Order: sequence, then structure tokens, then C-alpha cells
Amino acid sequence: MKKQGNRLLVGIVMGSDSDLEVMREATLSLEACGITYEMTVASAHRSPEKARKYAESAVARGLEVIIAGAGGAAHLAGVLASQTVVPVIGVPIPSTSLGGLDSLLSMVQMPGGIPVATMAIGRPGAKNAGLMAAQMLSLKYPEIRDKLRQYRDKMRGDVEKKDEAIKKVRK
Amino acid sequence: MKKQGNRLLVGIVMGSDSDLEVMREATLSLEACGITYEMTVASAHRSPEKARKYAESAVARGLEVIIAGAGGAAHLAGVLASQTVVPVIGVPIPSTSLGGLDSLLSMVQMPGGIPVATMAIGRPGAKNAGLMAAQMLSLKYPEIRDKLRQYRDKMRGDVEKKDEAIKKVRK
Amino acid sequence: MKKQGNRLLVGIVMGSDSDLEVMREATLSLEACGITYEMTVASAHRSPEKARKYAESAVARGLEVIIAGAGGAAHLAGVLASQTVVPVIGVPIPSTSLGGLDSLLSMVQMPGGIPVATMAIGRPGAKNAGLMAAQMLSLKYPEIRDKLRQYRDKMRGDVEKKDEAIKKVRK
Amino acid sequence: MKKQGNRLLVGIVMGSDSDLEVMREATLSLEACGITYEMTVASAHRSPEKARKYAESAVARGLEVIIAGAGGAAHLAGVLASQTVVPVIGVPIPSTSLGGLDSLLSMVQMPGGIPVATMAIGRPGAKNAGLMAAQMLSLKYPEIRDKLRQYRDKMRGDVEKKDEAIKKVRK
Amino acid sequence: MKKQGNRLLVGIVMGSDSDLEVMREATLSLEACGITYEMTVASAHRSPEKARKYAESAVARGLEVIIAGAGGAAHLAGVLASQTVVPVIGVPIPSTSLGGLDSLLSMVQMPGGIPVATMAIGRPGAKNAGLMAAQMLSLKYPEIRDKLRQYRDKMRGDVEKKDEAIKKVRK
Amino acid sequence: MKKQGNRLLVGIVMGSDSDLEVMREATLSLEACGITYEMTVASAHRSPEKARKYAESAVARGLEVIIAGAGGAAHLAGVLASQTVVPVIGVPIPSTSLGGLDSLLSMVQMPGGIPVATMAIGRPGAKNAGLMAAQMLSLKYPEIRDKLRQYRDKMRGDVEKKDEAIKKVRK
Amino acid sequence: MKKQGNRLLVGIVMGSDSDLEVMREATLSLEACGITYEMTVASAHRSPEKARKYAESAVARGLEVIIAGAGGAAHLAGVLASQTVVPVIGVPIPSTSLGGLDSLLSMVQMPGGIPVATMAIGRPGAKNAGLMAAQMLSLKYPEIRDKLRQYRDKMRGDVEKKDEAIKKVRK
Amino acid sequence: MKKQGNRLLVGIVMGSDSDLEVMREATLSLEACGITYEMTVASAHRSPEKARKYAESAVARGLEVIIAGAGGAAHLAGVLASQTVVPVIGVPIPSTSLGGLDSLLSMVQMPGGIPVATMAIGRPGAKNAGLMAAQMLSLKYPEIRDKLRQYRDKMRGDVEKKDEAIKKVRK
Repeated sequence: MKKQGNRLLVGIVMGSDSDLEVMREATLSLEACGITYEMTVASAHRSPEKARKYAESAVARGLEVIIAGAGGAAHLAGVLASQTVVPVIGVPIPSTSLGGLDSLLSMVQMPGGIPVATMAIGRPGAKNAGLMAAQMLSLKYPEIRDKLRQYRDKMRGDVEKKDEAIKKVRK
Repeated sequence: MKKQGNRLLVGIVMGSDSDLEVMREATLSLEACGITYEMTVASAHRSPEKARKYAESAVARGLEVIIAGAGGAAHLAGVLASQTVVPVIGVPIPSTSLGGLDSLLSMVQMPGGIPVATMAIGRPGAKNAGLMAAQMLSLKYPEIRDKLRQYRDKMRGDVEKKDEAIKKVRK
Repeated sequence: MKKQGNRLLVGIVMGSDSDLEVMREATLSLEACGITYEMTVASAHRSPEKARKYAESAVARGLEVIIAGAGGAAHLAGVLASQTVVPVIGVPIPSTSLGGLDSLLSMVQMPGGIPVATMAIGRPGAKNAGLMAAQMLSLKYPEIRDKLRQYRDKMRGDVEKKDEAIKKVRK
Repeated sequence: MKKQGNRLLVGIVMGSDSDLEVMREATLSLEACGITYEMTVASAHRSPEKARKYAESAVARGLEVIIAGAGGAAHLAGVLASQTVVPVIGVPIPSTSLGGLDSLLSMVQMPGGIPVATMAIGRPGAKNAGLMAAQMLSLKYPEIRDKLRQYRDKMRGDVEKKDEAIKKVRK
Repeated sequence: MKKQGNRLLVGIVMGSDSDLEVMREATLSLEACGITYEMTVASAHRSPEKARKYAESAVARGLEVIIAGAGGAAHLAGVLASQTVVPVIGVPIPSTSLGGLDSLLSMVQMPGGIPVATMAIGRPGAKNAGLMAAQMLSLKYPEIRDKLRQYRDKMRGDVEKKDEAIKKVRK
Repeated sequence: MKKQGNRLLVGIVMGSDSDLEVMREATLSLEACGITYEMTVASAHRSPEKARKYAESAVARGLEVIIAGAGGAAHLAGVLASQTVVPVIGVPIPSTSLGGLDSLLSMVQMPGGIPVATMAIGRPGAKNAGLMAAQMLSLKYPEIRDKLRQYRDKMRGDVEKKDEAIKKVRK
Repeated sequence: MKKQGNRLLVGIVMGSDSDLEVMREATLSLEACGITYEMTVASAHRSPEKARKYAESAVARGLEVIIAGAGGAAHLAGVLASQTVVPVIGVPIPSTSLGGLDSLLSMVQMPGGIPVATMAIGRPGAKNAGLMAAQMLSLKYPEIRDKLRQYRDKMRGDVEKKDEAIKKVRK
Repeated sequence: MKKQGNRLLVGIVMGSDSDLEVMREATLSLEACGITYEMTVASAHRSPEKARKYAESAVARGLEVIIAGAGGAAHLAGVLASQTVVPVIGVPIPSTSLGGLDSLLSMVQMPGGIPVATMAIGRPGAKNAGLMAAQMLSLKYPEIRDKLRQYRDKMRGDVEKKDEAIKKVRK
């Protein structure tokens, strides 16, 4: 059985530092599962070479999952996915004018051949990107599966606490 | 290094047998990567127990990835994902009236905590679901990574052939 | 002719306590019609067993209508409806990015076999969920029909008052 | 305990006879549950008096549920609902240009005060309208509850048959 | 040639007094064209009789144009139009969740037979409703045509002033 | 009281002869009301001078209403409206890719100052454009009001016939 | 004054040979303006190197405009644009499920820094891509401006012919 | 080889001075590339003659590119484009109710024959309009190509700086 140790397993890439506010949710999920990650700003459009090289070298650098956040004509996840067989998880960043529908469609509607595992728009999507990365890695690293189960137990407990609180509201 | 042998690794679940036409694309991708799978009809709404038990027993049965196709208020992927930490890949099936926008939003807009790795609407999405499953499994089974690279080489070759064909059109 | 007495007839379920702000409108409608209700937090995704058991035990517990509020990939109403023949009324909670269009489509586009009686997005929908529950119950409990008629008379009176006020604006 | 006998309990109203193709699904559901119904063509716009009088006289005529199908600026369900406290179930008929999104929004986005229990666009919605009517009536008529349970058992059985069929496809 | 004198020619109807903020724009346009109007709150759903009687008596009361503002499932304009041959101009009021797309579609997608002259969503639409009423009335009352021409001259002048201002910005 | 005689009162303009199939519905409505009209092909983009001169000369030529049909970036109605105070009724022609949502928004979302009386997308909208023109003209020509009332009576009669037919279906 | 001679000035790139049906319209426009072009199949996702090298070498090869057609998550135009300062014109290819809204948003919503000159969805857009390329090139090559003016004269003439034809329809 | 000197090459036109906030981004891009421009307020609807004359005289006045910003039923770019063969770049201004989807569709969905080079909604689109103008002009004026390359180098550098900053966040 494999151990991840503290090797760097997940690369989080975002098109702009303004995406950090949303993408930080992904880091919290990864930390909750004890997974080591790095963060990079690379734009599919403004720094295409940087984005390309990041994806091309992912396998060699030992990255096992890439999480990409981008908004508007959100090409970053697809561009990274086209350069590597490491699974790429996409987070559509909300856009000013269309609320992120553009980001979502640009990311999820990939042509046959190059998949991007697309999450919900915005913070819930970023949170889930970290968890999906953990679920993928848990295939190989059983200790992550344990962390995921604890995470889910905690979620169930939180629902229970909210349920108790809402029942008091009514009294 | 792990070998998958011919163990059953991927479960494809669909809400109705009418989804088979779309979901068959996923089976072609899996076969191209030498991955063994099973197919099941289970509806989140019409047979909720069956769907739940499928997801709950996934780990015990050795399934490492679940692919779920559903249309309209497409709850199947989310319902399966809520019952297991095995990664669930969702394929929005095109709907008669809204072209699959409803299927897509019902699938991708999952709340923080339970991710579904959502693919494009319809056939390209089903094809990519198979490939994304292969990419996830390739983290653990290196022979799948090789298959994926061959698959991509072939795709590149196909583009080249189409390019040659289109250049002849012009003469 | 039946009397409801003060039996608990309506269960209001919401995916998160943050939905309470919207769902409180449903409680006001129920109170206006003299109907006893309870409130529960249960998530289709984060606490699926809790949601399932709630629906499964609804008939035995004497619940005659369930109102469910959820946002984004709003599966809660459908998941509850799949587990009981008690009518389920759905309230799409507005979502941050898409204004609730995702919540609406995830709730209303149910496949043939399992209906969800879907209301408008947000507060007007929650208010109407309470009234629709009252209309359903009025089939059996005539005193609720009387309350509904008084409610409508009051609404008509409110329109009249607003009409008078607007006419003064113009003088 | 009440018996419905063969009293007329459900009125199906549609804006045009061209909606019959979709609305017939509602009649099949009602027949499966042993519920007596009538069908009427009345347009909120082309014959407003007829629509109004239908709703106004519903209680006196013993109708306990109204099902209304309409497309485009689909006002019929709301117009009926504004004239009676009998619960109104709405079926958005698919429109030629916008696939029924206009029908859906015109029907579901009712203002606080007058609810319409909205179903999915088109045939699945019409089928579910009949079932939702049956679920409402089952509060009062226990024999309908039994029919509904048989209906759901049959649905589960159908899923099972499709599952067996799809498994043979793979051999 | 006809003179309007100070007869009441235009009725502005709105579903709620909260629509006044938007609909006031219509009154400004009418006043600019010297047209006398009245304002009424009447809801297609909460006070259907009031709405119906308003439309039915419009011709007898000498109204020559009706302007109706409503939001969400915006049935008011269509309901009025179904009861009178006086032309009805509709203003879709912006809705909280969907920005008024629901209001627009509910108003404009009228079935063949009963037209509503639909304007833009919100304030520009309300302003234009007053101007369209004036354009209709100008067919009969030539003095309104003169006012409209002055109005347009003033608009052109305003553009000219803004153009001059913007040119100074650059210096 | 005015008589229209057989003066030409309505100009129907369309961007392309391919729009004739839809716009013919407008001619049927006008003919039913005994209104004389002409048809013109003029494109806001491909023949802007022709479109402009048409609108500029409308008053001088005695036209009292203009009906304009256009699709996609449907500027024709707005361009005509900007050149004349004759009321312009717009018919959004369905577009190949977006079903006419683009045509509708391009036509209805006019800025404050220049209204276009927008009808439904496609044939029902064209039919209603003819009727709305008749309603506008009926302010001045009482004989048109009579025709409109006959038209509505006939519609009501048609609903009655369809209602009878549907009742026979059920026997 | 520059002459283009028969140098190759425009490169048409498409993601798949299935896009040829739409993109052929661009070639007709270019031929009408006497502009030499080449056609290439290169996919942003399936053959990213080929796409990149095409764009990188565009200036060196003397290309002055690139036209790119792609559908779904249509990244091709943006990916090319990120690699060259040659202007890139994008044609959104209609998609099966969403009619090309996804293609349009993926193409037009480019982030600040890297523009794509986006045309209409489908054939009209492809036709206009050729004309926009000609308009750009006409800045430098006056003989193209002459061709464009002839093209517009012909369009105006075509409108005139259609107008005559439609007038005969009415007789 | 041509020099632009300080001739006026680009005309920026907007429908209202309220669009200046967005359109200023275009001026910054042009200034960064050393291109001289002018700004004009002209409305397709409120001052159609002014808009028409601006476009008609563009070639004579030496303008080589026009940038047009407009919102809602955004006809300005199309109206200008129909009057000149100078390339017109369109910037959809965000609208209050629909976030600019109306502006975008009204601008981009031009019929075959008259192209508008459409940019993203709002500020990023305005910024890119200036850059696209520069890219077009760089075909003729090589010194602009140099400026564009410097601009891109700077963008790449900015990404690098943001990347460094984000890496410090993590330490």
C-alpha cells in the first residue's frame, strides 16, 4: 500500500491572483485531507508558455492532480488538460456580467478526447475541487480515504447541529 | 506497481435504458484503455434504494470510479456521490426541451462537500467520462497511462489526416 | 368531516440553516391558515440517510405534506419525493451565481413518475409553498378552506389600500 | 374514511386542442390511479370568461384538483388559480422557439399569494401532473394511496427489467 | 381634426405599489406629451375581478391606451388585453432572481389573437411605454405628434451636449 | 368620425424575403380587419438608406403604423423607429441557432426614447402584429374596432368548437 | 500603395473537418474579395502543438489575418490569439445541445489583454469572418476596399430584387 | 513602410456618456500602443443622422478603425458598420437587468454581409477593443506591432509577478 508522505501531489493553477479568494476554498479541502499542494498563477492567454510548460512537466514533477480556476472564456483548464494525462479539475470563477455561466460553459463543454472534471461555479466548486482531488488520490493512498470519511462524518454532524438549532428557533 | 488485471474497476450507471445511446461512448473510451466495467440501470427517483445500495457497496465490490448519466433534474450522479467516496463522474444527458442545460446545471452545481466531476452534455461528455475515469485510474495503474498516451497520439494523428484531407478539398 | 386538531401536518425541510431566511415565509403562510408544522435541516447530499428516513417515515408520523427548500443542484425535494407518496412542494432557493435558475431547473424538471410541486424562486415561492400546502390540506379539512378564503379576502383588501394610496400620490 | 366513488374529481384544462398530445399523459396517470376526470379547452386570453367561470364554479361542481396546460406566455394556470382555492397544477407546454423556458417561467414565477404547483416541461410534466393530483387526493381517499404504491412498485419493476436488459447488451 | 382637451386618455395599471418606482417613468413621458392619465393598482392574481373590470370598462370610460407593469409571472398585461380591444402596452418589471427575463417572456410571448405591445425591462421600458402611448394617440390627436417631435429634437440636443462634454474630457 | 376608405395605412417591412413565411401572418390579421397594407424588403444593414428613407417618408405617404420583422441582431424595427414618430411594431423572427432569443432581445431592449412595440417570436407574433396595428388604428377608425370585436367573437367560438371536440375524444 | 499580389494573406483554421460546412462561407467571402487563403485543421485540445506552431509562425509566413472556427468549449481562437499579434477572427460553430451559446461565450468573453474578433454563430458568422478579414486587409491593400464596395453594391441590389419580388407576391 | 505619424486613426463612438466609464479602457489600450483617437457620443436611436454621418465620413476623414460601445438593444455598432467599410469593433456595455447578454447578442448576431468584430461584455471587452484596433493597424504600421509585442511582454511579466506574490501567500 502506497504512502504519499509529504510529496507534492496537487497543483492549483489560476488565471489571475484575483481568483485566489475563490480558490482558497480548494486549499482548505486539501489541508483537511492532509494533501500537499502548490499554487501557481498562469494564464492560458497572457502567459500561454508558462501554462503549457506547467502541464507538460506535471508528470515529471510528480503532480498527480491539477486544479484550475478561471473565469469568462475560461480556457485554462482545457489548455492544461490538452498537455497532460494528469486529471484536471476545473473551477468556473464567477464573472462580473454573466454570473459565471460563461465560465462554466467554456470549461465543461470540452470536445470528445480531452476531459475536464468540472465543479460548480465559485466557492462551493473550489471546495469540491479539493475534495474531488482527494477522492481521486484516495484510489492510491488509503490514508486519504480515511480522511475523506472523517470529513463526511463531520459534515453529517454539522447538519445535525444545524437541525437542532433550527428546532430551537421554533420553540 | 499495481496491476489492474481484469478486475472490474468502473461502474456505469444510467437513469434509463434510453440513455444507453449516449453512454455507449463511455464504454468505447474504457475499452480503448483496457479497463473492465459494468453497466447498470438505476434511477435516483424511480428506484432510489437500488441507486443507494449500488453506491454504498461500491468500495466493497472493488469499484474505483463510478460514471453516472442522467437528464432533466439529473440527480443520479449527486445521489450516488453522497453515498460513497469513490469519485463519481457525471454525464448530463440532453433533454428534449432545454437541450440539456437543465441536466448540466442539476449535475454540476453541487453544494460544497459532495463533488461530481461533470463532463460536457451528451456524447462528447460520455466519451470524456470514460477517458477521465482512465486518467484517474492511471494514477494507480501505470499501464493505463500508456494506453492514454497512445490514445492521444492517435487523436493527434487523426487531426493530421483531416488536415491533409481538407487541404485536398482546396485544390 | 375531518378536523385537523393540532396534529402536526406539514414538514418543512431545508438543505441548510442559511435557507431559513427564505423558508420562514412558508411558516407565516401556514400559521395564517392555522396549520401545525415542524422544521428540519436535512441535506440530500451531506446527510442522505437523514433525508431518506425523514421521507420514509412521513406517512407513519402523520405528515400530510412536505415542503422542501434547496438551492444550486437542488436535489432535496426530488430525493424526498422518491421515498414517499406524501406530496412534496419544492422551493428553489436563489443561488449566488445564477440567481436560482439552476435551483429551479434542478427541482422542476423531474422525470415522469416522481412529481415535485415546484414554486417560484425565493421568498414568493416559500410563501406560496405554505399556501399550496394549505390548499392541498383544505381538500380534507374544511376549516382550512375557510382560512384560505379569508386570506384571499385580505389580499384583495390590501390591493385596494395600495390602489387608494397610489391615487393620492398623483394628487 | 372517504370513498371517491366515481365522482368527477379532477378537471384538466388546456389552452388549445393542440396541447392534447402532451396532456394525454396526465389522463393516463389519473386512469392508473382510478381517478375520474374531465377535459376542457379554455384559453386565458381567447376565452377569458370561460376560463374564469370554470375556476369559479370548481368547488361547487365538486372538483378537487385542477390541472392546467399552457405554452408561451402561459397564463392559464395562474388565471385559474386566482379564481379558486382548489389546488392548480401547471404543465408548461413546450414552445416552438424557446423550448418551453418561456412557458415554465410564466407558470412557476407566480407572485406571493397565488401558488401554481408547477411540473416539468412537456410530457414528463403532464404525466407527473396526474400523479401529483393523485398524491393530493390520496390525503383524503386512502384507496388512491394504494394505487400510487402499486404504481411505484411497477416503476421499480420496470427499472429492474431495463437493468437486466442492459446487462445482456454487454454479453 | 380631433383635440384631446383634458380628457383622461391613458390608464397605467401596476400589480403592486412597489412597481411605482419603475412606472413613474411612464408618467414623465406622458406629461412631456401633454397627455392626461390615471394610475391604478390591480393584480391579475390577487384582485382578478378588479383587473377584469378595469379592462372591460376601459372603452366606456374613454380610455384609449392602457399601460401595464408587472414582474415575475407577469400576467397583468395579457389579462387586461384579453378583456378589451384598447391597445395594451406592457412593461416587464425587473425581478429579484432572474433580472426580469421571466417578466419579459411572460409578457411578450402572447399567443396569436391577443397582442401586448411589450417594452424593454424596467425604467427604459416604462419611459418608452409612455412614448409609445403618445405615438399611438398621435394618429388621432395631431397636437401630440408635435409634442413627440419636440421631444425627439430635445433628445438629439442632449446627445449633442453629451458629445461636447466628452470631447472636453479628452483635452 | 374618420373613415379609412381604402387608403394604405400599414407598411410591413422585413429584412429578407425569407421572413415572408412568418410575416404573412400579419397580412392575414390586417385583411381580417379590412386594413390596406404594403410589403417591402429593406435591411437595416444591407440597405440602410432604403430603410431610412422608408421610415422618413412614412408620415408624408400617409402610413399610420409600421410593422417590422427581423431576426438575429434584429435592428430593423429600432432603426425605422428612430426615423419616424409613426408607431413601429416589431416581430422577432426565429433564428437558426438561438431560437429567436437574440432577435427578441435585440428588438425589445430599446433604450429610453425610442420605443418598439415588440410581439412574440415568430408566427404568433406576426399574427399579433397585425392585430395590434388594428387596435392602434381603431382609436381613429371606429369601423376597425367593430372588425376587432367580430374577430374576438370568432376566436371565442373557435375555443368553444375545440372544447366540444375534445369532449368527444373522451367518450 | 501596397499590392497583395497573390500572396497568401489569410489562414482559416478549424477544430475539426466537420466545421468545414460552416467555414466554407468564409472562403466564399474571401474569394469575392480576391484574397488568397489556406485552410488547416488544428485542434486547441487534440493537437495543441500544431495549433500553437501555426499561430507562432503566422507572422513569419506572411499571414496577416487568422480566422478560427470552433464549437462547444471553443478555445481555438483564443489559443491562437494568445500566440500571435496577427488579428484573430472567431466563428462560433453551432453546438448540438446548446445551439452555439456555449461556443459564442467561450469565444467572445476573452479576458483583457488577448482579443478575439467574434462573429455571429454559424454560417452568417463565417461569411462575415471573411468580410471582416477583407475589411482589415483593405486598410493596407486599396484594391480590396474596391472589391468590398462592389460587394456591398451587389447586396443592395439583391435587396432591391427581393423587394420587387415580394411586391409581386401581393398582386 | 507606412508611418502613422500623429494622424487620427481610431474613432471611439458610444451611445451615451454613461458608457464612458467602460469605454475609457479602450483609450488606455490605444495610448499604450501610441495610437491617436477621438471620442464621440452618437446614438443609433436618439441621433441616427449623427451616427450615420459619422460612419459615412469615416474614410474621408482618414479613420481606419471604429470602436463602438452600446448596451441593451445595442444597434450602434451594426448601424455604423452598415455605412462604411472601415472595420467596426463592438463593445457590449453591461445592462442593468440582463447583465449584458442582450447587448452581446444584439451586437454579435449580425446577418451575413455586415460584420461587427465583437469583444467581451464590459471593461475587458473595451480594453481588448483598443488592442484589436492596434492589431488591425499593425498590419500597416509596423511600429504598432512593436508596441503590441512590448505590451504582451509586460502582461507576461505581470503574470510572473502575481505568481511570485501568490507563492509567498503560501509560506
